[in-house]
Order: sequence, then structure tokens, then C-alpha cells
Amino acid sequence: MTTSSRPIAGEFAGGAAKPTRIVQGVFGIDTPGQAAPPWSTAEWFNTGEAIQLANLRGRVVVLHAFQMLCPGCVHHGLPQAQRVHASFASAGVAVIGLHTVFEHHAAMTPVSLQAFLHEYRIRFPVGVDAPSTDPREPIPRTMQAYAMQGTPTLVLIDRQGHLRQHTFGVVEDLALGAAIATLIAEGD
Amino acid sequence: MTTSSRPIAGEFAGGAAKPTRIVQGVFGIDTPGQAAPPWSTAEWFNTGEAIQLANLRGRVVVLHAFQMLCPGCVHHGLPQAQRVHASFASAGVAVIGLHTVFEHHAAMTPVSLQAFLHEYRIRFPVGVDAPSTDPREPIPRTMQAYAMQGTPTLVLIDRQGHLRQHTFGVVEDLALGAAIATLIAEGD
Amino acid sequence: MTTSSRPIAGEFAGGAAKPTRIVQGVFGIDTPGQAAPPWSTAEWFNTGEAIQLANLRGRVVVLHAFQMLCPGCVHHGLPQAQRVHASFASAGVAVIGLHTVFEHHAAMTPVSLQAFLHEYRIRFPVGVDAPSTDPREPIPRTMQAYAMQGTPTLVLIDRQGHLRQHTFGVVEDLALGAAIATLIAEGD
Amino acid sequence: MTTSSRPIAGEFAGGAAKPTRIVQGVFGIDTPGQAAPPWSTAEWFNTGEAIQLANLRGRVVVLHAFQMLCPGCVHHGLPQAQRVHASFASAGVAVIGLHTVFEHHAAMTPVSLQAFLHEYRIRFPVGVDAPSTDPREPIPRTMQAYAMQGTPTLVLIDRQGHLRQHTFGVVEDLALGAAIATLIAEGD
Repeated sequence: MTTSSRPIAGEFAGGAAKPTRIVQGVFGIDTPGQAAPPWSTAEWFNTGEAIQLANLRGRVVVLHAFQMLCPGCVHHGLPQAQRVHASFASAGVAVIGLHTVFEHHAAMTPVSLQAFLHEYRIRFPVGVDAPSTDPREPIPRTMQAYAMQGTPTLVLIDRQGHLRQHTFGVVEDLALGAAIATLIAEGD
Repeated sequence: MTTSSRPIAGEFAGGAAKPTRIVQGVFGIDTPGQAAPPWSTAEWFNTGEAIQLANLRGRVVVLHAFQMLCPGCVHHGLPQAQRVHASFASAGVAVIGLHTVFEHHAAMTPVSLQAFLHEYRIRFPVGVDAPSTDPREPIPRTMQAYAMQGTPTLVLIDRQGHLRQHTFGVVEDLALGAAIATLIAEGD
Repeated sequence: MTTSSRPIAGEFAGGAAKPTRIVQGVFGIDTPGQAAPPWSTAEWFNTGEAIQLANLRGRVVVLHAFQMLCPGCVHHGLPQAQRVHASFASAGVAVIGLHTVFEHHAAMTPVSLQAFLHEYRIRFPVGVDAPSTDPREPIPRTMQAYAMQGTPTLVLIDRQGHLRQHTFGVVEDLALGAAIATLIAEGD
Repeated sequence: MTTSSRPIAGEFAGGAAKPTRIVQGVFGIDTPGQAAPPWSTAEWFNTGEAIQLANLRGRVVVLHAFQMLCPGCVHHGLPQAQRVHASFASAGVAVIGLHTVFEHHAAMTPVSLQAFLHEYRIRFPVGVDAPSTDPREPIPRTMQAYAMQGTPTLVLIDRQGHLRQHTFGVVEDLALGAAIATLIAEGD
């Protein structure tokens, strides 16, 4: 198990989760270096075909990892991802949701996720993180590969596929807009 | 089918649903007259045993009908029900949730509801509205008996078991506090 | 000087002020006993003539004490008073504003208050608390008579003119609606 | 008089003002071309000496024009300017307030403004727009030079002193963060 402690689903209304910033730098952007791990997914919604990270090379990618029953995702993370999609899709930014279920697996099946995406009018592509091959391991594979601490987690990937920001918890809109624009301004 | 049109799950963020007030009077309280129909439930959470409306005689009852994937319930109705529970439980008011699934039935099973209640820290008793005996009828039985138009729906029942307020959509906190206090002040 | 410590203008955005409840009881309503002190005012807005508390006998009175440059008043207290006015005026409740300037006197003159009331569309009557007769005393007379700790302060007075609730800081809408309705339900 | 119609103080709570975007482009940023007009000010707060736009050459400038009794400024514009100051001051961005009083002049004097800035904890420099030399002209000089339509108005100026964005009304945080970061990324 990659993560050393039990992941946390953010609440934020009452503020139970203590979000931790992992990276630093201008607007929280890391210098290029680490390649973002590929994604392992079992299913996709809002897209005709499965999306591979490698196929998004040349585009800035905003990856939003969430669970449909995580209050911090529903109240903060997903509405923000929808705003990012509305504001930056025309600038070529790829907004991708990743359903990283690490608890209550029977409660958050793809059938439930599909209804959730419909009711909350989420239009950007959403992949279902692939379950671990170890049946005793509750944390899905992409979540493990990125060593995510919980949900919501926001990941920014630059045009060359480098991991540039990785945040668990709340990111303010001003800082996020600045980070995305900085990656856009870097050019190819 | 009791309701003449398809029920609506409220959104309210963008304001799709057009809530309609059914009753009138001081603070929207109806004069006593109609007895509140009994509840038909399949399962209960947050309570040791099934709750019958008849057993709450002598207490003011706030019934909050919701669906776990209805954005208007998650963003407005359920947080309000939690505030009502926190403010009025000590005054003897019974706050009861009713999961009235009328769409996406496979997505909102009791297994999913249980995880939802846990993650959103909903502590008051929640009953699962019993499915219709007609397999082609998507609207559950209590929802039909009350002729609810959709979710969220708020129902106030007085100490004698009379239906005193029935609202689909958003009720403001000021008005709701006044309505509950008025029923409390009526005495036995 | 009646108050033992320097009054505080609430902020609440960052939460600097620590509101303190003075009274207790059902929905924070005190049992009748103390008569509410009369008001000493220098000027009135939104009303044709000066309002005396004695002339409101027979009506439930909601007195909202504020300063136009107090952030907690602008963000919370005054919008709540406007909601109370909108919801309860038809039920005979008198909503009265009181401009209790205890600091920055030159910055919050009646000329500035008048523009403030216009821009914020405050329609209920607002009296200007009369300055102390002692020129070294910054706290105005009604504020002293009620021993208010700062702004915003909310005061509920029943139909017989008794002081029933006196709160410095934030009062939740649910509780306030219940308190007002309870006073209404007491009858004459 | 530069502006063709009466300026408007934004409300936004009820949404009276209809904000109008003036410029277009990536994140609403105009291509360089027009030099930003110099500022005419009568007085400054939160700074030891008067600030000239020319002295900010080499820095990205965020100019926030407001009136202290404009609800849209108090509820939206100024809190946003404070967030911009908190997030971007360390990146060298100059956040400057401009008190552009075009109505209720006697109600919004520098004495009142000083108390307002203190109570709302506004820490960035704020200049008072210089009154028109024509005593019949209510619109102050910088507001005229920029042809502002009302308050709040947000102006972005690049490191070379070019006017790059000019918006009356609400700008979303995501878009504003992106616009500022884009100007930062342009370099010297």
C-alpha cells in the first residue's frame, strides 16, 4: 500500500479534513521533472472512448480526483472543476474527472456515479479509477500511483506530461486560475 | 399514479426547479383539518426501530423528503434539516428524513444511502420510502400518499397528527423557524 | 459609563468579535420582567415622524442596533433585519434600526447614514441614537441604557414592552424566526 | 464629460447593475496598445507617499476603483482585491485602490473613507480620485480619464504601463487569477 495513512474524504463544511499542500513554487507550481504517472481506468463517462494521459500531450491537463459521496468534493471540488471547464476549455485545457473510490465501494458503483454525473450536470470526461489487483487493497490503482492522500485532490500536468501541482483539499480559485494560466503561458 | 406530472429533483444552484407553495396562512401554516397520511417504509437508519407517525403523536414533526443524488437536497434541504435538528430537538421536535426515490432507483439503494448518511454526518432518523406495489410505478408509496411534487419536500405535522405545511422546494430559515415555533406554541 | 469594556464592532468575516449571549430560555427568550428602556434618538430616517417605543405597545418589536461601517452589521445583521422586515411586517412586527455610533463619530454622521440607507435599500425606520450629554463619553444614550456590548446587537421586545431577548453578535435565522413567532403567539 | 451615461454603483446582492465587459481576448486581456492614463489623486491612505502610475513601471498593476458605500464593492470587489493582494503581492503585483466618488459626495469624504478602510482591514494603498475642476461635474478626474462606467471597476495594467483589461462589475476569481498570471508571464 503506497499511502502510509488512511485516505480522507474531505468535508470542509465543518472542516474535519486538514488539507496539506505537497508542492511549492510560483502559484504552487513545481518545476518540471517528474513525469505524471499514466492512468489506470475501468470505465469512462461523458466521452466516446477511454482517455489516456499520453494522448493529451500538448495540452495542459487539470485532473480532479473525487468520490461522489465526499462532501468536500460535492461542495467545493466538483463545482470548481466545472468552473475550470467552463473557463478554460476554450483555451485548450483538458479537464478530467477521476472517480477514486477508496471506501464504501458498494455505495459508489459506476451505476450510482452515472446518475450522480447526470443530476449534478457534470459534462467533462470522468474515468473510474481501476480497482487494485489485490482484493484486500481498498485504494484504486491511479490513486496509489499518484500517492493521493484523499479526496478531493487536484493535479496539474503540463503540455509535456510533467506533474506540476498536486494538492489535497481546497485550492482557491485565484491561485488555481493563476497556476493554469502559467502552464498555458509556458508554451510547447 | 397520484401525481399528475413527473416529479422533479431540485437543483437550485442554477435554479432549474420552480418550487411551488401548496399551503397558505400564518407563516405558511394551514389550519388543522387533514390528518397526515401514515408512512410506508422499507427500512430505517439512525434509529433502533421503525418509526410510525402515530407514535409521534404529541410531538411536532418535521418530515424532510429527499433523494441522496438530488443537488437541491444536498445543498439546501438536508443542511437545513440538520440545523432544525440541532436547534429544535431539545424542544421536543421530531426531525425525520424520508428517502423518496422516484428516479435512478439502482443508483440510490439503501447501501448507497447508508454511506451517504455517514459521510454527510446526518444523525436524525431516516426512513426509506416503500416502493410501489406496482412494478411499473416509479414513485414510492409515501411520496404518493402525500402527493409530493418532487424533492426536497418539507412537511410539518402538528402534535395531533394534522398536516399543517407541505412545501416543495426552498423554505427560508426565518419562515421555517417561525412555523415550527408556532406549532410548538399551540400546545397539546 | 455603563459598559465595563470598550464596545466592539463585529467583523465575522474573519470572526474577530466573540459574540456573547446575554439571555437564555426557550429559543433564547427571557421570561417577562424587565421593561425595555425608552429610546433616545436625535433623528429618524424612513419614517415621517420620530418613533417612541411606548407607541409600539401591542406590537412585537425587533430592534437592530448597528453602525454603518461595522462589517458584521453590513454582512450579517442588516441583511437579516431586512429579511425579518420582509417576512414579519405583515404579521405586525415592528422592525426598527438604531444607529449606535460609539467610534469614528465624524465618519458616520447622519449625512453618511442617509446615503448608506439609500444605497443598501434599507426601508425600515432607522433612528440615530442620541449622543451622550457628556462630551467625553463616546457611547450614545440608548446604547448605554441597554448596556449593549457592541454592534450588531439584536433586541426583542414583546407586546407589553418587556425586554425578552438581547444578543450581541450573530443570531441564526432559524432561532430568530422561532423567537419572534413565540412572542407573536403569546398574544396580547 | 467623458462618460455618456450616469455611472452606476453595483449592488449584485439583488443584481441591479448589469456589468458590461469592455475588452476581449485571452482571459479578457487586450493586446498592448493604449497606455494607461496617469492617475489624478487628492490624498492617499495606507502608503507613506502619493503613488504615481509611472513609478510602478516594471510591475503588473491591479487597480480597483470603488466607492465605500457601493454594495457591490463592499460585498464583491473589495474582498476580491484583498484576496488578490494576499495572493499576488509576493509575486510583485501592485494592488491599488481608487476611491472614485461620483455620487453622495458629502457622505463619502476622506474622513469616512479612513474609518471604512480601518474597519474593513484594507491594507493596500488607496488613493482618493481628484474632484473635477468643474464644480458642476460630479465625476472625478481619473474616473473620467478611464471612462469608467461605475463601481466596482477593475483595471489591469502591464509592466510597460499598457491598459490590458478594463471591467465594470463582477470578474470571477478564476479568470482574474489567469489574467494576472498571464501578464506576469509576459516578462519585462
